[in-house]
Amino acid sequence: MGGSHVEYGIVCGDRVIAAETIAVKAASLAEVLPQLESGILALAAKSHLELREMVGVAVGICAIVDSGGTVLATNGKYDDAVGFNFPQWSESKFQLRCRAENDTRLALLGEQFAGAAQGFEDAVLVTLGTGIGGAVLLGGRLLQSRGHKAGGLAGHLGVDWNGRICSCGNRGCAEAEASTASLDAICRERQRFAGSGLAGMAGTIDFQKLFAAADAGDALAHEILEHCLGVWSSLTVSLIHAYDPEVIVFGGGVMRRQEAILPAIREHVERHAWAKKGSVKIVPSMLGSTAALLGAVPLLRGGA
Amino acid sequence: MGGSHVEYGIVCGDRVIAAETIAVKAASLAEVLPQLESGILALAAKSHLELREMVGVAVGICAIVDSGGTVLATNGKYDDAVGFNFPQWSESKFQLRCRAENDTRLALLGEQFAGAAQGFEDAVLVTLGTGIGGAVLLGGRLLQSRGHKAGGLAGHLGVDWNGRICSCGNRGCAEAEASTASLDAICRERQRFAGSGLAGMAGTIDFQKLFAAADAGDALAHEILEHCLGVWSSLTVSLIHAYDPEVIVFGGGVMRRQEAILPAIREHVERHAWAKKGSVKIVPSMLGSTAALLGAVPLLRGGA
Repeated sequence: MGGSHVEYGIVCGDRVIAAETIAVKAASLAEVLPQLESGILALAAKSHLELREMVGVAVGICAIVDSGGTVLATNGKYDDAVGFNFPQWSESKFQLRCRAENDTRLALLGEQFAGAAQGFEDAVLVTLGTGIGGAVLLGGRLLQSRGHKAGGLAGHLGVDWNGRICSCGNRGCAEAEASTASLDAICRERQRFAGSGLAGMAGTIDFQKLFAAADAGDALAHEILEHCLGVWSSLTVSLIHAYDPEVIVFGGGVMRRQEAILPAIREHVERHAWAKKGSVKIVPSMLGSTAALLGAVPLLRGGA
Repeated sequence: MGGSHVEYGIVCGDRVIAAETIAVKAASLAEVLPQLESGILALAAKSHLELREMVGVAVGICAIVDSGGTVLATNGKYDDAVGFNFPQWSESKFQLRCRAENDTRLALLGEQFAGAAQGFEDAVLVTLGTGIGGAVLLGGRLLQSRGHKAGGLAGHLGVDWNGRICSCGNRGCAEAEASTASLDAICRERQRFAGSGLAGMAGTIDFQKLFAAADAGDALAHEILEHCLGVWSSLTVSLIHAYDPEVIVFGGGVMRRQEAILPAIREHVERHAWAKKGSVKIVPSMLGSTAALLGAVPLLRGGA
């Protein structure tokens, strides 16, 4: 359950056998749950499966969720979900047991189960998108803390203690220095903005536009791209030093241009991380938005 | 077992009933082990205790140690310990079982057992000294990773991606921007150094000298102190965002001036951390060098 769409599906083994997407407007439970409930029933019918043949329901939502499946906190999306308990909902609607998790954590479970983190016990997922999200597995288990935030604020490690103020209130977070949410402001703050190819672009500047301008030879776009690559690279080293992972998986919309991003991060890590050369794999997500669907299997197994 | 001295003692419950210190020159096992072996026997005799009355031997050493008690890696101290297995040593010398850990991790176990982190399950220890060390407990257990470094490189989270090159190879680590090891160079790199009160000081500039100059009204010393407080504060927020602790314990030699350090960090955390006001305690070590001795109890209980 994301801010712009909700994907739901039926998973068998390591395969998604049916899936649908709901476009989301208000990003509230009031909007989404009725569609989700009828959609799940329709998907089961279409797949010739009875609900009682299912192992359970796994929910991933862009929120902080406790181990009992209750939403503890949100950040502008699904604000009406605070206090909502997904297992109770699932039991009453489908007579199926249910576990709920933060969507990024569920996606990392999926990548470890059947994607880019397969075969690794210590793994970090970083999503470069509107914000910068994160999740951490150590010893094959999601990092747990009483505040439910351990490993989840990867984008809010500082990269510049004199840097820009972040939406979280901190100064110089990676998210404030290089994410879609901050990119437009970062560009417009530059002195040379008015004379650059970026100034002529309609609407908010996102990474697609930044890459297009850089590809077209715009000097400022190139410079800002280098800035973002530097920030992401420095963040990656901090994540290696913080969690000592065997692999860091990069996902999120910005990774559509992974060929222009991952080699720079890999080179920086080889030069600057306190780790044996080649010992930390820097890889793109293999499963994309399917990762969270496949994460249902390990989540319901209780291995999380 | 630290780089400048080795402390050993006998612990009963939450009390150190006898302890001694060995001053260290070469910081090698060859130098230290014979003294330690005879010292332990002498301490037991003096305390009217037989070795067979002991539960076991706990070793803390400034190195990376695996869960079997073998030293995996060192960083300029006890380099002859790589591959050394402390449980075998203890068994052959004392007929006592033994566990070994990194010294900072052992100290955090001690602080949680009987010191500043008592009553908390999720805790971080930061040592501000020659370098900046760290250790992390989540759910009452030390963070574990296959590389044995998870939580141990707190000082090597980046605070300035365009900052100084660190001894670890990274750019802008907190340790490179504000630690005893980097302070002298930080001071001498300043343009106004020659005209400042710091220039007249004999020898390497350490925090004692920096505080003395700042207390005497030197403007540059004051400015560099503010720089260090800014770096430590930013690092603290990153540690909160990385590990979501209930408490961060600050130890190390620089904390002799804790009254000039902790209030600034607390105020920064209240303003900038993504956490409820007052939810993360920022406290000084209660046990100092005794923390690692008392850590023996939880380590040998196996709760680590």
